[in-house]
Amino acid sequence: MITVSVDAMGGDHGPEVVLAGAAKSLERHPDLNFVLFGIEQECLPILERFPALKAKSRFHACDRAVQMDEKPSQALRHGRGHSTMWRALQAVKDGEADVCVSAGNTGALMAMAKFCLRTMTNIERPAIAAIWPTLRGESIVLDVGATIGAESRQLVDFSVMGAAMARALFEVERPTVGLLNVGVEEVKGQEEVREAGRLLREADLKSLEYTGFVEGDDLGKGTVDVVVTEGFAGNIALKTAEGTARQIAEYLRSAMSRTWLAQAGYILAKSAFDRLREKMDPRKVNGGVFLGLNGVVIKSHGGTDAEGFAAAVDVGYDMARNDLRAKIDTDLNEFHSRRPAETVAQEVRTAG
Amino acid sequence: MITVSVDAMGGDHGPEVVLAGAAKSLERHPDLNFVLFGIEQECLPILERFPALKAKSRFHACDRAVQMDEKPSQALRHGRGHSTMWRALQAVKDGEADVCVSAGNTGALMAMAKFCLRTMTNIERPAIAAIWPTLRGESIVLDVGATIGAESRQLVDFSVMGAAMARALFEVERPTVGLLNVGVEEVKGQEEVREAGRLLREADLKSLEYTGFVEGDDLGKGTVDVVVTEGFAGNIALKTAEGTARQIAEYLRSAMSRTWLAQAGYILAKSAFDRLREKMDPRKVNGGVFLGLNGVVIKSHGGTDAEGFAAAVDVGYDMARNDLRAKIDTDLNEFHSRRPAETVAQEVRTAG
Repeated sequence: MITVSVDAMGGDHGPEVVLAGAAKSLERHPDLNFVLFGIEQECLPILERFPALKAKSRFHACDRAVQMDEKPSQALRHGRGHSTMWRALQAVKDGEADVCVSAGNTGALMAMAKFCLRTMTNIERPAIAAIWPTLRGESIVLDVGATIGAESRQLVDFSVMGAAMARALFEVERPTVGLLNVGVEEVKGQEEVREAGRLLREADLKSLEYTGFVEGDDLGKGTVDVVVTEGFAGNIALKTAEGTARQIAEYLRSAMSRTWLAQAGYILAKSAFDRLREKMDPRKVNGGVFLGLNGVVIKSHGGTDAEGFAAAVDVGYDMARNDLRAKIDTDLNEFHSRRPAETVAQEVRTAG
Repeated sequence: MITVSVDAMGGDHGPEVVLAGAAKSLERHPDLNFVLFGIEQECLPILERFPALKAKSRFHACDRAVQMDEKPSQALRHGRGHSTMWRALQAVKDGEADVCVSAGNTGALMAMAKFCLRTMTNIERPAIAAIWPTLRGESIVLDVGATIGAESRQLVDFSVMGAAMARALFEVERPTVGLLNVGVEEVKGQEEVREAGRLLREADLKSLEYTGFVEGDDLGKGTVDVVVTEGFAGNIALKTAEGTARQIAEYLRSAMSRTWLAQAGYILAKSAFDRLREKMDPRKVNGGVFLGLNGVVIKSHGGTDAEGFAAAVDVGYDMARNDLRAKIDTDLNEFHSRRPAETVAQEVRTAG
């Protein structure tokens, strides 16, 4: 049995999409339970339309929803303790839920999650991991925008956390990990990336196989299970890929509607186009995973529909069922117990 | 009359592709002239096959070609003064050619170009600009990998240079410029990017219209004429977009060959697919432009074919015909003359 806490008010379309999405995911995973946090008069009438969901949910009425355009600091000031977003996170902290899912404002969700759940021991900064469709299946890419810039140590932490997520999601024993860089030669790239590569190579962890640097075009190829980068470059890569996919879909649409011959061809090949559309469907891989906190939080795209929100709940379900947090904990311990005492001592001195 | 100096030995396929490409571009631009630098016994037999090109070229025999896998420092040490790459650059420096085109090793070409041509007054670092196909036509994106990291001042220089290139290529009077960032809110992003935004807004230049921050998905949309970023993120964006395009092309190919109905549809819609293929053809926008040096250098993809190399020569032709270097010079002067004396004085103090 997996319990998911849901911020029912998050997203551009609020409870209408969120509750429909939760109901869809429940159809696929009958062992799901929900704790829902929402504004009573908006949510309860919708919940009535989903009796199966209602039967598996506890509903908590809240008096405030964080707005999509609220600044993180504002959201914290006004929403701490009692907003739907905060209380959905709090449910994970209190052990009432295994994972939290929200389609709300990313900045506010991250700020609240850090404040409410705190980062794990040994982790300085959380990361947002995205599931990336590739020619070989799926990869995990992190950080796609939790924080800007990352020290080598943080890139190593991201590697360990991303690999734990890959083990939870893809059921591979020792996921391959690559560091995103601008060239495959050892001499290129940012100092922190090179240093992280050296650390990973030396650590030679049981939980992951570090394979070296990868480049932007390796993302779509699926060269490795986990691609690690700092949040600025990661966010730009993610949005560039999304933009390119939309651009090509638009080219395709326009090319197919230009002549009657092309239109006829389109009709004949419709099943193939449907297949392609499904492959490229951004809703299927909806759900950024916040890693490095004492609790797993899934961020759904704000603008998604019920199918997309259901996919985010599915991701949360998989993470909880495979006990992602425990995996990360074990793997981080492996890494930190293997580091030479001198390095740790030096870091303590530097930090002190 | 435009004269292009060509490193005939550059690229994975050497003079076979380079000379065929130059010949193709000459067909489109009969006022082109070439100075070719190559290894005599490899080039002359090929040149015989292109009498029109031969008639418009001066051939200079060299004794060395820079290898595709040579390190920049190695290439400089062994190839300075006498390699085909160096001498093609030298031809621009000496005024023998208006622009240099090479499909050789990017790192070596940039190192040699910096050494041979030197950066322009007021420019600290050169940038590589890419021509990016968008839903609205084409944009210019820089830096896509000349250097890693950039101070705010350098991002402003990139903006001015990119806008000058947009004016030369697209014939717009006051190109729109956006800074690549991870969010459109003013509070987000790297400190240098925010500061560059402030500088551009305050400068309010005649030569460009600064419109604010753009994100990764704005690249494909063509939201602005010029997208400015530092080389690490820019290179990752470029390669991610290329990778995503290849990935989708592969999905499409596989979907279209699965059933006989899809295959029949493909045949009917073939003209539409051809159109799409042409839209997505990476050869059409082949040619990274080195900006900020005392001379324009075009870097063709090393693995391209004759059509792709011809496109790189076309870009060089457009740049020279529109006198890109003079445009950049004028625009940089506009920017630097408008900056408050106090800022300049402060920078001199900081640098000193």
